[in-house]
Amino acid sequence: MREGLIVFVTVGSALALIYAFVQFKRIFKFSEGNETMQKISAIIRLGANAFMKRQYTGVAMFFACMFVVLGIMAFLGFITPFVPFAFLTGGFFSGISGVIGMKAATYANARTAQAASESLNRGLRIAFSAGSVMGFTVVGMALLDISLWYILLRYVFLPTFFSHITSEAEIISYITSAMLTFAMGSSSVALFARVGGGIFTKAADVGSDLVGKVEAGIPEDDPRNPATIADNVGDNVGDVAGLGADLFESYVGSIVASMALAVAAGYGFSGVIVPPLIAVVGLLASFIGTFFVNVKESADQKSLLTALRKGIYVSAALSAIGAYPVLAYALDFANHPERMGVYGAVISGLLAGVIIGYVTEYYTSDHYKPTKSVADASLTGPATIIIGGLSVGMISVVIPVIIIGASLMISYFLAGGATSFEYGLYGIGISAVGMLSTLAITLTTDAYGPIADNAGGIAQMAKLPEEVRIRTDALDALGNTTAATGKGFCIGSAALTALALIVSYIDEIKQRIPDTWESVLRLEITNPQVLVGLFLGAMITFLFSAMTIRAVGNAAQTIVKEVRRQFSTNTGILEGTSEPDYATCIDICTRGSQKEMIPSAVVAVLSPIAIGLVLGAPGVIGMLAGATATGFVLALMMANAGGAWDNAKKYIEAGNHGGKGSDPHKAAVVGDTVGDPLKDTSGPAVDILIKLMSMVSIVFVGLILNFSIF
Amino acid sequence: MREGLIVFVTVGSALALIYAFVQFKRIFKFSEGNETMQKISAIIRLGANAFMKRQYTGVAMFFACMFVVLGIMAFLGFITPFVPFAFLTGGFFSGISGVIGMKAATYANARTAQAASESLNRGLRIAFSAGSVMGFTVVGMALLDISLWYILLRYVFLPTFFSHITSEAEIISYITSAMLTFAMGSSSVALFARVGGGIFTKAADVGSDLVGKVEAGIPEDDPRNPATIADNVGDNVGDVAGLGADLFESYVGSIVASMALAVAAGYGFSGVIVPPLIAVVGLLASFIGTFFVNVKESADQKSLLTALRKGIYVSAALSAIGAYPVLAYALDFANHPERMGVYGAVISGLLAGVIIGYVTEYYTSDHYKPTKSVADASLTGPATIIIGGLSVGMISVVIPVIIIGASLMISYFLAGGATSFEYGLYGIGISAVGMLSTLAITLTTDAYGPIADNAGGIAQMAKLPEEVRIRTDALDALGNTTAATGKGFCIGSAALTALALIVSYIDEIKQRIPDTWESVLRLEITNPQVLVGLFLGAMITFLFSAMTIRAVGNAAQTIVKEVRRQFSTNTGILEGTSEPDYATCIDICTRGSQKEMIPSAVVAVLSPIAIGLVLGAPGVIGMLAGATATGFVLALMMANAGGAWDNAKKYIEAGNHGGKGSDPHKAAVVGDTVGDPLKDTSGPAVDILIKLMSMVSIVFVGLILNFSIF
Repeated sequence: MREGLIVFVTVGSALALIYAFVQFKRIFKFSEGNETMQKISAIIRLGANAFMKRQYTGVAMFFACMFVVLGIMAFLGFITPFVPFAFLTGGFFSGISGVIGMKAATYANARTAQAASESLNRGLRIAFSAGSVMGFTVVGMALLDISLWYILLRYVFLPTFFSHITSEAEIISYITSAMLTFAMGSSSVALFARVGGGIFTKAADVGSDLVGKVEAGIPEDDPRNPATIADNVGDNVGDVAGLGADLFESYVGSIVASMALAVAAGYGFSGVIVPPLIAVVGLLASFIGTFFVNVKESADQKSLLTALRKGIYVSAALSAIGAYPVLAYALDFANHPERMGVYGAVISGLLAGVIIGYVTEYYTSDHYKPTKSVADASLTGPATIIIGGLSVGMISVVIPVIIIGASLMISYFLAGGATSFEYGLYGIGISAVGMLSTLAITLTTDAYGPIADNAGGIAQMAKLPEEVRIRTDALDALGNTTAATGKGFCIGSAALTALALIVSYIDEIKQRIPDTWESVLRLEITNPQVLVGLFLGAMITFLFSAMTIRAVGNAAQTIVKEVRRQFSTNTGILEGTSEPDYATCIDICTRGSQKEMIPSAVVAVLSPIAIGLVLGAPGVIGMLAGATATGFVLALMMANAGGAWDNAKKYIEAGNHGGKGSDPHKAAVVGDTVGDPLKDTSGPAVDILIKLMSMVSIVFVGLILNFSIF
Repeated sequence: MREGLIVFVTVGSALALIYAFVQFKRIFKFSEGNETMQKISAIIRLGANAFMKRQYTGVAMFFACMFVVLGIMAFLGFITPFVPFAFLTGGFFSGISGVIGMKAATYANARTAQAASESLNRGLRIAFSAGSVMGFTVVGMALLDISLWYILLRYVFLPTFFSHITSEAEIISYITSAMLTFAMGSSSVALFARVGGGIFTKAADVGSDLVGKVEAGIPEDDPRNPATIADNVGDNVGDVAGLGADLFESYVGSIVASMALAVAAGYGFSGVIVPPLIAVVGLLASFIGTFFVNVKESADQKSLLTALRKGIYVSAALSAIGAYPVLAYALDFANHPERMGVYGAVISGLLAGVIIGYVTEYYTSDHYKPTKSVADASLTGPATIIIGGLSVGMISVVIPVIIIGASLMISYFLAGGATSFEYGLYGIGISAVGMLSTLAITLTTDAYGPIADNAGGIAQMAKLPEEVRIRTDALDALGNTTAATGKGFCIGSAALTALALIVSYIDEIKQRIPDTWESVLRLEITNPQVLVGLFLGAMITFLFSAMTIRAVGNAAQTIVKEVRRQFSTNTGILEGTSEPDYATCIDICTRGSQKEMIPSAVVAVLSPIAIGLVLGAPGVIGMLAGATATGFVLALMMANAGGAWDNAKKYIEAGNHGGKGSDPHKAAVVGDTVGDPLKDTSGPAVDILIKLMSMVSIVFVGLILNFSIF
């Protein structure tokens, strides 16, 4: 009976999508500003759409190949027949969420700039509304996908076509394995979106800064810079669409992995529906939270941040409160008081998310010592600012690792790990779900950032009055902070999700070879298979970062040369008498990102399979654990170092250490430029890598068990 | 009877020390050049000695504290009574090796410059001889320490004072646990030497480059630069003394860990003496190898490299050949043909070392694509060269990880891992010993580098003719290559040694709680204790890197300000009419390094204890594995990125991309400056960290088993 609660998930997802639709429509009520602004916004939209079309052509080809591979595997009996279709839907829902969020962002950018010319608060409202389209679409689509598959498999397909399957464990296993595959589908799309979009946006950003700011000495977003439109397109395709697909996948991954863990823990169907139910509670809490994001017309930047924070904290608190009755009913606390610890796991996840967000802010905001010390290092030139940023980034991982570790131990033991290993693991999964439960509002504040960034760009290009640009700068700076905390949150949840997935992998093996798994799963860390896997996992995160950083570097160098070429062949551009050729720069970025996307995807998909074939399942598990541990610290380090450099630059631009144009400022621009690919391409890409590799391992487990050398 | 072979180890060590002494004396036969050169060399010597005196005062205090702590623990029965004394001797032998090597280097620097004024070959010969003092002293001292303790414990102390101990396993355990502690002593000294020396040398280097090269536009090692003497002192205290102590510890660690593993594998005393015997074979092979390092008087730089390589390859080949009869006799292959695989482990270690050295050269030498691509990135400014170097560094870890992984699997299975876990682990230990067996010659070529660097500095400061400086530059460039390959080798061996130590740790626990260890050692990677340990281990390597990088950054900024102050208050310095104040810069570096050494040592010693007390032995093991895997890739990345930046700069200085003084050159100097602390401070420090933490864990295991929460 409790299982019927799944219908609330469908209802919740519908509400989220309706809310997103209403917010989307609302954007159009506002003025898009003068003709220039409309024109610029239209060009950005055009570029973004062109990129997306090309991107998804590539993605479609990848999906077609994978569909065939999975189809063959299903035919050979390695996987259930639903798996290939689940893979497609996961990709489709994830992709569509990103695209809708991006559309909203590209319609909202000029409108935000226009609204900011009236007041800071109005600017915030529009950008926030547009961000919430993304936040609620992602959550709505994810829950729709989960609940539809659940209902279809449980009540239609299985009873109709597989009526011989009657044992609870087997039914749930069928369902969760299909679901893990759609998580893999969304993960693949996320990888393409993050890597492709990330390369695009940072190649444009780095290239335009290097020639524009440093060489030609023109401001950021100056319309004379041929790469400036590409830079603004990049904000939308990388930071909005990529971000959405990324978190779609974390969200789905954590929920589905926990559903799978419920089977092993013996909680049955009611345990299975707990994770999506917690998500629905968090969704409603986020919805209420959005109403707390409201400031007076006369608000300053600081009160804007307070308003956003209030929204997030209120949502987290409501989510914590609302989760209790749901868990109490679903897990039947009345008759099973020992299960109350599962609720503790939810709280520990929620808390960990909030704390990590706060720590990230401490390390990356120029209100605190670390980023100020990076700015101080600019006084002795670019080398010391790089050294300073690297060390701040590295130090910044300490507390989040301790928090994640503590949250892991707490949720494991509260959920009953001392009694049974499986109870504890379910607790870990649930704590990841708890952390991500308020995704709708955290994603909203994240997506707000690039919209504000775009608004600032448009204000600059359309030569709006100084005061408007000051306001859009304030909105943008706030966006930097929310983007950084969002990244910390994103990486923290990825680590927990990846761990939950690793455990699901082990469960999957136990179910497939119930009699022999003990001889296969020799998981002691001293087993050389595990140990070598560990080293390989650590290495893969570095390889992957290197590939994405290099891709940005290559594309940026092409952009630099192109911009230099345009400046030298057409002197009218810098004088402002003739218009630069924006399209070529967009094209270079698009081609660069498309070319580099494929090898990264190949590494992510093939490494777990190759390592599995050589080192067997223990090797895969070692590899996943190594990649998760190293990937977590590496991604966090890159994100925070990048954030600190970015805000150190902003700190100097605000007039410290000589301000804009001074030598320290030039050094800070170098720091920011180095940080760009780290924080917006490699860091997020590693984040997806660790989850995608886990899912690939799960989907291809049959292959590994049959054909591995060891 | 076979056990008596240990006497060959004492004989071997005596031979090594005699050879080192002869080489040391030989240095003084050569002319130290003109008066200026003598004076500069004397100042450098003075600075280096002053630093060492201060350094070892700090180290002595640390050792006094640790001696008391260990004494109390011995009194309480947690450790055997020999342990505190073993700790002291390990520190003493390691420190003395470093100091002797450094003395040789500081006497050889001016002599190398003088000899280079005659021919390239003569310069090489002196620098190589001085390097061999270090190489053979380290190996000789290490083997002396090992054989003395073995003989004393086995034949004197145990029979006299502990005559009740008669079982083979117990005797060996007593011996190896004392030995592991002296490895910890040498490890502690190595940490201080590497961190302290590393901070000193790089603060001086970075500081002097930033103001001298970049701001004042004067060449490297120009006598007008107040920090230039400190820079040259740093080469000796960091790159020579630090390197020696570091490899002393790797060498001792791998040998002692393998001796301990022999017990678990059931090889008895003959298995225990195999590791030091392999080391003696390698020592003799290295001795013969040195005679192959010889070139014609008219030789060019390329043939110098070939000569050095020939020496290393010949030694490796001889070591491989010589190890066979020794193993065949000690392990009695005639009656135990199944043990022949252990020989395979030796070969796999030797091969892995050679291949990693070669790969490192590929990524860091400007003859190959990677470093050239970094140099190309200088065309678009400092930001792209940083991005380029980071990505080359990250990519460069891929092959070494695969090689180490393969070597691990091969040596595990060849040594009989399929039959018994313990056989396999002994194989892993032996492969580390194999890799390090030719340490005498590889360390000689390593130590040669900073001597050549110093010679170049003296040639510059003493204004020797252009042709001499071209020759010392050639010697220096060669030294960069050998230093980089040496680092790769050092890090590779550290990873294997750390793994061997982790396994000894587990054995130690099994011996201490023979009845209950199965309930304590739940080492599945999915055990949350292990998992959280893994994350913490990965994090600690980042924290440690950050601390050391930051220390260099802080000290360098102080140097920059001091040099600027001297230039502005005394205009005669830049005009060359008055002498700068070298002593203040040396003093700043010394103070900076002493101040920052302590927190690093505290992190290294306390983390395994703190984590053990909270997470228990499985947490410690997870932490050690995480630190080893992440530390390996991180240290390698930092070393290789640093090497690539350094040589990219040299490549540009050789006249490419506009040569010295051009914009690309300035960008390359920024890259080199960023790389300096990474490759010469943090990378090597992480390298020691992973071994030291393992040893601390072993020594404090009694504490953890009694008082941990879990």
